[in-house]
Amino acid sequence: MKLCRFRTTGDDNKEGESRYGVIREERVYEVASLFEAHAEEGRSWALDDVKLLAPSEPSKIVCVGRNYAEHAAELGSTLPKEPLIFLKPPSAIIAPEDAVVLTPLSDRVDYEGELAVVMRQACRQLKTSDDVRPYMLGYTCLNDVTARDLQKKDVQFTRAKGFDTFCPFGPWIETELDLGAARVETFVNRQRRQSASVGEMMFAVDFLIRWISQVMTLAPGDVISTGTPSGVGPLSVGDVVEVTVSGIGTLRNRVAAAD
Amino acid sequence: MKLCRFRTTGDDNKEGESRYGVIREERVYEVASLFEAHAEEGRSWALDDVKLLAPSEPSKIVCVGRNYAEHAAELGSTLPKEPLIFLKPPSAIIAPEDAVVLTPLSDRVDYEGELAVVMRQACRQLKTSDDVRPYMLGYTCLNDVTARDLQKKDVQFTRAKGFDTFCPFGPWIETELDLGAARVETFVNRQRRQSASVGEMMFAVDFLIRWISQVMTLAPGDVISTGTPSGVGPLSVGDVVEVTVSGIGTLRNRVAAAD
Repeated sequence: MKLCRFRTTGDDNKEGESRYGVIREERVYEVASLFEAHAEEGRSWALDDVKLLAPSEPSKIVCVGRNYAEHAAELGSTLPKEPLIFLKPPSAIIAPEDAVVLTPLSDRVDYEGELAVVMRQACRQLKTSDDVRPYMLGYTCLNDVTARDLQKKDVQFTRAKGFDTFCPFGPWIETELDLGAARVETFVNRQRRQSASVGEMMFAVDFLIRWISQVMTLAPGDVISTGTPSGVGPLSVGDVVEVTVSGIGTLRNRVAAAD
Repeated sequence: MKLCRFRTTGDDNKEGESRYGVIREERVYEVASLFEAHAEEGRSWALDDVKLLAPSEPSKIVCVGRNYAEHAAELGSTLPKEPLIFLKPPSAIIAPEDAVVLTPLSDRVDYEGELAVVMRQACRQLKTSDDVRPYMLGYTCLNDVTARDLQKKDVQFTRAKGFDTFCPFGPWIETELDLGAARVETFVNRQRRQSASVGEMMFAVDFLIRWISQVMTLAPGDVISTGTPSGVGPLSVGDVVEVTVSGIGTLRNRVAAAD
């Protein structure tokens, strides 16, 4: 099932209120919440007539660094023995089709296409014997946009990865995904720049969720982004960047100049 | 003015709903919101009869590292030329008097007493000529609890500083504070361990707010913690740790064993 958050654009929604929906055959059927039984409310819109938003409103976005060996190598980094986690602030979130806005503080802003997990249910201190699936709502695409020069300079990743617009995710949440068959791919202006099987991740999704839950309680809607494959590179004004995960869909954003 | 968030404990609040209040002469007067004109609603309680909560519900907690020269030296760190920022997750927040819970993943969990700012109004890209005061609600105390061994091992601070219960702040927000006269002090079991004038900070409050706003939009209730003085040290089960900022008050927490 494909779950989304959206805004209708007609005169009936001048407040710009967001709604939740299930997407089926190019239509969006309104539901009360991402987390309930997805009971449809009767109203529906053509997918083309709504504005898709980032599909959840996370209290935190936990990202995993160096989770693909080839990407760690291309940055000259050692491979971590445990997951390397960092946070992106919620203020960095933008919707599908919105613009990644460059910053005058950086000379090199990179795309990093990733598979992300959206949590369904609060959890903490999950054990190896715990099944993580009941706590997960599903999967989406995320672009961990990074000011590469500031990342190197600061050592801490927070500033480099925390600028407004540096966290596009979406376009929706796919609740059923065959992880074994999924590939993460990133395209810039339709040219493929990243491509890896999710199976190449050093730490798998269920391991990551359990490991992170040992540190911090995960809340409904929270996002865990699972790291980027090799092939990262810079974005320029006017570029169109697409993160595709097979079985989910494509997150597309354009790149705009700093204000 | 002292603004707080609290819960009444009597039978009239079985849902555990939180309220906002103004504290005056040991009583709490309910107000509709932290951010409005503080119009009192008529109801009041004795301060001793309510449970104080962390005074805001931030969408993000931005912390500043190495902002006191003597603390950077005691950790063997170089002094940054620009502020060094990192995030603590909202899941780490606890209330005054609540327990900091140690983790089996760390052999050394330290207190770090700090002055924190709570934002009143959304802002981004403030300029040097902008007055930051209209965007600030006030000041509070924060304990940036840190698993020192994991901080060194991980390099990224996120795990070390992100455990549940590692972000006590409060006990309230003081809207008027003479920063020039303020001292940050930390006591463990009534013994003073940290003491510095806020004037010793390398990057002052107004500079930090403007600088962080160049990176990320700050939202109402967001917290900026301004760094810790020298004198950090470990906490043990049963300790009582107090962070005092003169002109604000004292944030007190006890330390409990891992679950």
